[in-house]
Amino acid sequence: MRKLTVVKIGGNIIDSPAELEVFMDDFARLDGPKALVHGGGVMASEMLRGLGIEPQMVDGRRITDAETLRVVTMVYAGWINKCIVAGLQARGCDAVGFSGADGNAILATRRPPVPIDFGHVGDVSTGSVNVTLLEKMLSGGLVPVFCAVTHDGHGRLLNTNADTVAATVAAALSAHYAVRLVYCFEKRGVLADPADDTSVITTLDAAGYQAMKTSGAVNAGMIAKLDNAFAALGGGVAEVVVKHASELPEEAGTVIQSNS
Amino acid sequence: MRKLTVVKIGGNIIDSPAELEVFMDDFARLDGPKALVHGGGVMASEMLRGLGIEPQMVDGRRITDAETLRVVTMVYAGWINKCIVAGLQARGCDAVGFSGADGNAILATRRPPVPIDFGHVGDVSTGSVNVTLLEKMLSGGLVPVFCAVTHDGHGRLLNTNADTVAATVAAALSAHYAVRLVYCFEKRGVLADPADDTSVITTLDAAGYQAMKTSGAVNAGMIAKLDNAFAALGGGVAEVVVKHASELPEEAGTVIQSNS
Repeated sequence: MRKLTVVKIGGNIIDSPAELEVFMDDFARLDGPKALVHGGGVMASEMLRGLGIEPQMVDGRRITDAETLRVVTMVYAGWINKCIVAGLQARGCDAVGFSGADGNAILATRRPPVPIDFGHVGDVSTGSVNVTLLEKMLSGGLVPVFCAVTHDGHGRLLNTNADTVAATVAAALSAHYAVRLVYCFEKRGVLADPADDTSVITTLDAAGYQAMKTSGAVNAGMIAKLDNAFAALGGGVAEVVVKHASELPEEAGTVIQSNS
Repeated sequence: MRKLTVVKIGGNIIDSPAELEVFMDDFARLDGPKALVHGGGVMASEMLRGLGIEPQMVDGRRITDAETLRVVTMVYAGWINKCIVAGLQARGCDAVGFSGADGNAILATRRPPVPIDFGHVGDVSTGSVNVTLLEKMLSGGLVPVFCAVTHDGHGRLLNTNADTVAATVAAALSAHYAVRLVYCFEKRGVLADPADDTSVITTLDAAGYQAMKTSGAVNAGMIAKLDNAFAALGGGVAEVVVKHASELPEEAGTVIQSNS
């Protein structure tokens, strides 16, 4: 089976121009078909504050009213996505930016308003990915770069978690490829001790993860990421790694393992 | 030769939700391969003011410093492009948004700083359009939707005139298609008397245009549009029409004619 690498890059790295340049160098050099999914929450919150709007978060998730949707779409699909696409093009990587609306790449369902009304927020499933389009792009040597904005098919855009977009796209493409999914962020992996950056766990399975959740060793943000990582494995992704963005080309970070 | 319709939609229409909905209905219904190019200057100026930045214009062209580039990219490539793409998808039109950076669709050259330094502004030529990529998209039934942000191939985004993008894309695709280029805006065509909206000139050739420029019957904005219209004809576009957005499906507006 052909191999495909799907990389997710988090907002804290995007916010650091020097780190983003290094990451783009490394990503452009990756062999074979590949796709990128990016966040951008840090910059979106800054832009909201610049416009006099205080960001509203519940459990690390953004409450997305109409004005917030406009700002996140501008920041994610506009500035961040186009900067990354232009940066990759300059490195000989034939990147094409995508929101979920483009080519109906990712359809989402607006999250029900109960128990919490998150507003214009969408949930995705593997069935909502336009695999035919993405497979055609990848076969033609193009590199899709996804921002985490999707649509509902009725003309409405939806703010969607970038980690979930990465897991969903990776799982959907597992029908055609042996997919390696790499979550890149500002930590060196899953840490045994959150206060000690060197305490990277090299492999984590579902039982180990459950034990960490029980002991409180993982915070809400990491739980959201790891839930997506395990969901990707469950959805057929061959390999999932969580690591620091600067270590993309290296054997490093935490390998997430199913228990089977 | 196969037919292709390239439509440019101006910022004043985009700014009116009701007019934009009607336009998207009409555009989605157009038969055959098609592409859309959109502006968005009105909304970009509003966003700049919202962030406390006063827009700077010279001869109707925007001076684009680093912060203005960020805002126009957010507004054009982010909000407006994705709203239109999602709106067209909802109408069964398989739209895919593009900046010039995506798939290296349109390469531009930063405008020399003399006599006026416009900042991060790019100029394009027919040779700078990735015709192979666009032809592949169009043949696959996709509908490219371009915002007027391009790139220089070295990682820098450039603000580019949307009328020029439309003329350049239309001319470049004339190698593969008999292209009809339609400039849609808030007037019913080229007016003999700018104060009289019913004084639409049905056909305008280069001699007639020169006479209008000499007599002062056309303003700077219209001159920029018509220069692009004539350049498109010179570049091989089969037909160019300037008309009101609400009259897209109708025989209406001003047909631009070469003198040959």
